[in-house]
Amino acid sequence: MNGIYLDNNATTKVDEKVFLAMRQYLTCHFAHPSSPHLLGAKVRQKLEEARDLVAVLLGTTHPDEIVFTSGGTESINTAIQGALAALPSRRHIVTTKVEHASVLNVCRYLATQGYRITYLSVDGQGRLDLDELRKSLREETALVSVMWANNETGVVFPIEEIGEIVKGQGVLLHVDAVQAVGRVPINLRRLAEIDLLSLSGHKFHAPKGVGALFVRRGVRLHPLILGGPQERNRRGGTENVASIIGMGKAAELASIYFADENTRVRGLRDKLEKGLLQQIPHAIVNGSREARIPNTTNVTFRRLMACKLLKSMADEGIYASSGAASTEVKTPSHVLLAMGLTEQDALSSVRFGLSRYNTEEDVDYTVGRLARIVGHTQIGVASAETIAMH
Amino acid sequence: MNGIYLDNNATTKVDEKVFLAMRQYLTCHFAHPSSPHLLGAKVRQKLEEARDLVAVLLGTTHPDEIVFTSGGTESINTAIQGALAALPSRRHIVTTKVEHASVLNVCRYLATQGYRITYLSVDGQGRLDLDELRKSLREETALVSVMWANNETGVVFPIEEIGEIVKGQGVLLHVDAVQAVGRVPINLRRLAEIDLLSLSGHKFHAPKGVGALFVRRGVRLHPLILGGPQERNRRGGTENVASIIGMGKAAELASIYFADENTRVRGLRDKLEKGLLQQIPHAIVNGSREARIPNTTNVTFRRLMACKLLKSMADEGIYASSGAASTEVKTPSHVLLAMGLTEQDALSSVRFGLSRYNTEEDVDYTVGRLARIVGHTQIGVASAETIAMH
Repeated sequence: MNGIYLDNNATTKVDEKVFLAMRQYLTCHFAHPSSPHLLGAKVRQKLEEARDLVAVLLGTTHPDEIVFTSGGTESINTAIQGALAALPSRRHIVTTKVEHASVLNVCRYLATQGYRITYLSVDGQGRLDLDELRKSLREETALVSVMWANNETGVVFPIEEIGEIVKGQGVLLHVDAVQAVGRVPINLRRLAEIDLLSLSGHKFHAPKGVGALFVRRGVRLHPLILGGPQERNRRGGTENVASIIGMGKAAELASIYFADENTRVRGLRDKLEKGLLQQIPHAIVNGSREARIPNTTNVTFRRLMACKLLKSMADEGIYASSGAASTEVKTPSHVLLAMGLTEQDALSSVRFGLSRYNTEEDVDYTVGRLARIVGHTQIGVASAETIAMH
Repeated sequence: MNGIYLDNNATTKVDEKVFLAMRQYLTCHFAHPSSPHLLGAKVRQKLEEARDLVAVLLGTTHPDEIVFTSGGTESINTAIQGALAALPSRRHIVTTKVEHASVLNVCRYLATQGYRITYLSVDGQGRLDLDELRKSLREETALVSVMWANNETGVVFPIEEIGEIVKGQGVLLHVDAVQAVGRVPINLRRLAEIDLLSLSGHKFHAPKGVGALFVRRGVRLHPLILGGPQERNRRGGTENVASIIGMGKAAELASIYFADENTRVRGLRDKLEKGLLQQIPHAIVNGSREARIPNTTNVTFRRLMACKLLKSMADEGIYASSGAASTEVKTPSHVLLAMGLTEQDALSSVRFGLSRYNTEEDVDYTVGRLARIVGHTQIGVASAETIAMH
């Protein structure tokens, strides 16, 4: 592609090494990993190597705790629905107001099935009130499901402290780590309170359509997708071989690059943020500056319409977004609203997500162009009236 | 790969044209199809083209009836569980004894949830008794789920007649067409009684990990995987872009090649079958010779152990299987048992599945080697005692 891609919370470029690792499993090595012959056994072996690499990235020494899925959304559905089905006597779930649509929509569905759901609030910085979490737990609580890092603001929840609160209550803890993997250190051996953890390959340079669910040994899980005995009877269906192998390679790269890449990307993100705040009046960064993944900044350009701003940016070859990729551009973000932003400010907010492929030049160009767009062009000033039209 | 691959009911080689169609979506065109910018829109357009191509292969003029999934097993789970969830008052399901594990395991699970399941029998040729189907339907029947073609024997069920029986009963008809797509003509505009139809990309030269579910307009379906609004709110999660595009290309090729390829493959299969029956004493073909997909033959080599025979074949570079890829080699096939074979005969049966890549030479070599293996080698004669050991 040409242009500057700053939409890495939506999806990331497949790393060339990932593509090369996948390629022969899309061409010559095509056997079924469950086939009893040698061709199948060779594919099976590569699948298990990929499982080992994902396990290493997550800091578990038990690769059998990794279940391959079709992506973050399937992992999340399996974690929540599968854990509840295996624990039918408890009917209360605790989650937050700022989760991804997959968690929220599963919870909304479960509410129609008689489950009671507590949605925890966040403050103006996007942070949880841990006391509220503590008070929300009760005897009938089956599951706490929280995200590790927010997909719109990058704000990181204190997973270790959440684990401490949940500990010993007989409550399962599911963590949506889709935005966290490769961006925060994850050590599931140490964080023993996490029972289930969801991740998505395409957020860390593997292809779309593959993910994993960590299921701690001993945690009972009813499969969402029933079929053959794949994934130790936890997920039926022929494995997405090439993409799983790609995700294994991407996990290996994320493990290797972790410290250097995140330091460098954080530097770029901070430079971008500083440039935008300096150059553009009424620009405000959303979310805690202390507790954030290194690649993300969410900026409100007050009195400007993000949808029009993004269009002008794209005309200059800069690609960002206004929040979750699957959300209508003209719907104010539920995350920003939960943080107390007005609808108008939420609709004036742009998410920038960087990756290993971005450069200093990308940042300089983006700041320069954005300043010019905001300064010289009539973007269309957001007002209560224009918003009301949508 | 080297060798002769005759395990095409388990999985198929990705067609080179499919790989080439996918490649750039695993490298340069990596944007999220839901992203609002131009990069996303271009990817979205290719996804919709793939949907059109799958619709053409299935003979529907409504591409919005195609829901992309992670494969046949997810499609089947979504079809059965999703249709029932949208029809909660009816609690009876009709299926057959010879379905794939995904259908059977979903039904077994539903039986634990208070559903009543009727498993229809088949005769010695693997054929359904349509009168039994007719009698099985009752007021509380929600769904009939039958396979189009059997994955172990290739036997084709009379879908049109099944549709006629189900017609007007207010019963949903789901067809597992995983083995049928590309091998039998499918015209869903004409076969208006089919409400839901499942398919899997990797059975027709697309990669593993992608499939589709046909959902006829007007059929209500509760999503199995809840999340974003993808697939018109019928399947959440970022789309498996490259593989979907690959499946679109595979569908296009299957449409183009259909008549010639199936004629040629049928000729090869018939030649293989004839050669085996002529050369090998006690060889018996399982399943109706009239109603079969053209690429499959399932042969019992009486008094021989299939698992050992397959090993000897693999030593000669010939790869086949004893049945469903995910089934333990030493478990007798539920399909063959339902057809009345003894356990011993079921354990003596080998499935050969051909594809567009097989040649006359492959067939000649296979017949010659198999005759030699059976004639000259001590494979290990199956007996009640050796089977009892497993």
